[in-house]
Amino acid sequence: MKDKLFSGIQPSGDIHLGNYLGALKNWIALLDEYDAIFSIVDYHAITVPYEAHELQQRILDATAIVIAAGLDPERSTLFVQSTVPEHTELCWILGTVTRISDLERMTQFKQKSQQFYQTVNMGLFAYPVLQAADIILYKAKAVPVGEDQAQHIELCREIVRKFNKTYGETFPEPQAILGEAKRILGLDGQAKMSKTMDNTIGLAEDPKSIQKKLNKAVTDPARVRKTDPGNPNICNIFTLQHFFSTPSEIEYVDRECRVAGIGCLECKKILGKNIIAEILPIQEKYENLKYQKKYLQDILAAGSKRCQEIAATTMEEVREKLGMR
Amino acid sequence: MKDKLFSGIQPSGDIHLGNYLGALKNWIALLDEYDAIFSIVDYHAITVPYEAHELQQRILDATAIVIAAGLDPERSTLFVQSTVPEHTELCWILGTVTRISDLERMTQFKQKSQQFYQTVNMGLFAYPVLQAADIILYKAKAVPVGEDQAQHIELCREIVRKFNKTYGETFPEPQAILGEAKRILGLDGQAKMSKTMDNTIGLAEDPKSIQKKLNKAVTDPARVRKTDPGNPNICNIFTLQHFFSTPSEIEYVDRECRVAGIGCLECKKILGKNIIAEILPIQEKYENLKYQKKYLQDILAAGSKRCQEIAATTMEEVREKLGMR
Repeated sequence: MKDKLFSGIQPSGDIHLGNYLGALKNWIALLDEYDAIFSIVDYHAITVPYEAHELQQRILDATAIVIAAGLDPERSTLFVQSTVPEHTELCWILGTVTRISDLERMTQFKQKSQQFYQTVNMGLFAYPVLQAADIILYKAKAVPVGEDQAQHIELCREIVRKFNKTYGETFPEPQAILGEAKRILGLDGQAKMSKTMDNTIGLAEDPKSIQKKLNKAVTDPARVRKTDPGNPNICNIFTLQHFFSTPSEIEYVDRECRVAGIGCLECKKILGKNIIAEILPIQEKYENLKYQKKYLQDILAAGSKRCQEIAATTMEEVREKLGMR
Repeated sequence: MKDKLFSGIQPSGDIHLGNYLGALKNWIALLDEYDAIFSIVDYHAITVPYEAHELQQRILDATAIVIAAGLDPERSTLFVQSTVPEHTELCWILGTVTRISDLERMTQFKQKSQQFYQTVNMGLFAYPVLQAADIILYKAKAVPVGEDQAQHIELCREIVRKFNKTYGETFPEPQAILGEAKRILGLDGQAKMSKTMDNTIGLAEDPKSIQKKLNKAVTDPARVRKTDPGNPNICNIFTLQHFFSTPSEIEYVDRECRVAGIGCLECKKILGKNIIAEILPIQEKYENLKYQKKYLQDILAAGSKRCQEIAATTMEEVREKLGMR
């Protein structure tokens, strides 16, 4: 039997290249190695303000885009978190072995507290505890995450150790699997690519819009004129070339940039062409899948059924160990 | 249809006169007026260190003692919290509309943080949110509580207002019902009667032990010798007389104490006799019920079944309003 892998995605079809390179591609590469479970995490999504009447569509869009990107539903399990309420039950239980001081030092909580300072709620604070429950409810051993989530996985391991010590060996300590693309910067070349920073290229974005955004993207700030030689080592566009272009293209732009043989626009055209070539088939598949509501719902229903069974078994064991049965 | 009433009790047969006067007697008095639901709150109990292998016995003991004290299972619903996991699901959801700053100012959290300073966990912090879920999952309108829980009920009302405002009118704001005996002091005459303070008289305690403890209990500290006149107004033993003795006995000890006509021991003998007379039938019933495991389990199972149905209906409505279905 393969080890289990768990990962969660926010309910949204509006995912960007940062998500794609940092998470999705990583997941897809692991499909054969693991028994992979992917959850659309609506319990997590409600910790920030949202429109309730849009949530179902967001869930379907997320399902369509990940399948379009290569998350083969025949080789993985895809389900909506709130169809397995055991996530919240285990979250409560894990909360009783989670130190408040540990939650207070989580970087993501600090960031979101600033961003949503008017609504700093208990859900944001307990977010990493629910995340720990998500993973260990399935006794997953592998968790493909971006670098920014590594701290939460560390905390999850700590929670597992504490639980096992208190109630007896029950859960394995999950391992974070960091992809090659650990931290994708946005078009500003400064901050992590994220919707909040408005520095993204959307996976479902119109090719013309993508090229237009790229053309305006920050490169080596010292290269003011086309005749100035550039330094690819500090250029975010050059970093992105590594994920989309061929070795000979990368070698070409590296060499020509340094001697001002090509301008940034030419370099960006090569990148744009390659990004679009990679994501166009995904976009076509997404456009097609998006309207197959019944197909998507069936996939999610089958995923829920499987996850409900695993969750019921785990919780039976947990309640037993806690003396609740 | 009667309004619903909800109250929770810790899983323990080891309850004391403070619990009996402050909560239990109040509940029993309300049985006919309300559709009363009582929960043995094991999810709450695990927020402090405990022995897992003792929990089931503690649950049965709590069931036996409250029935013995008059909580008629024919006229009320009694169940174990963890058999209705929806409590934790609603808790998670309510957490997303609960401000962290509100939880930080809860007196009980501050006290328990000091008492269990080595294990200040997320469960202790989120305790009032689960308590709010306990109540509103059944749309209860009345919550009989001691004075120390009034702050939590206020917070519950605030959470209800926030939820209704965000997702549309769903839950009624519950009302705290404070009993006559708002705050029972312990035998030290100083602090609230509580196991932690070691100043209790147990409801299931041996009569001889009760009288012995009473004889040592603090009275008017200014009355050093039997020949000194006493002041009943500041004497905790006199306060207790009000709950157990007849009007003429109360009038007698009041008058004779003030003129040093009787000593404290004589006053305590009257109180002891009356306490024992009231609780002896409870003790006998408890001793008898304690071993009727099957009977107690059947009562709890019937309670769970009813509560599971109500909880399922409420959560269906909640998930719908949140856009989760």
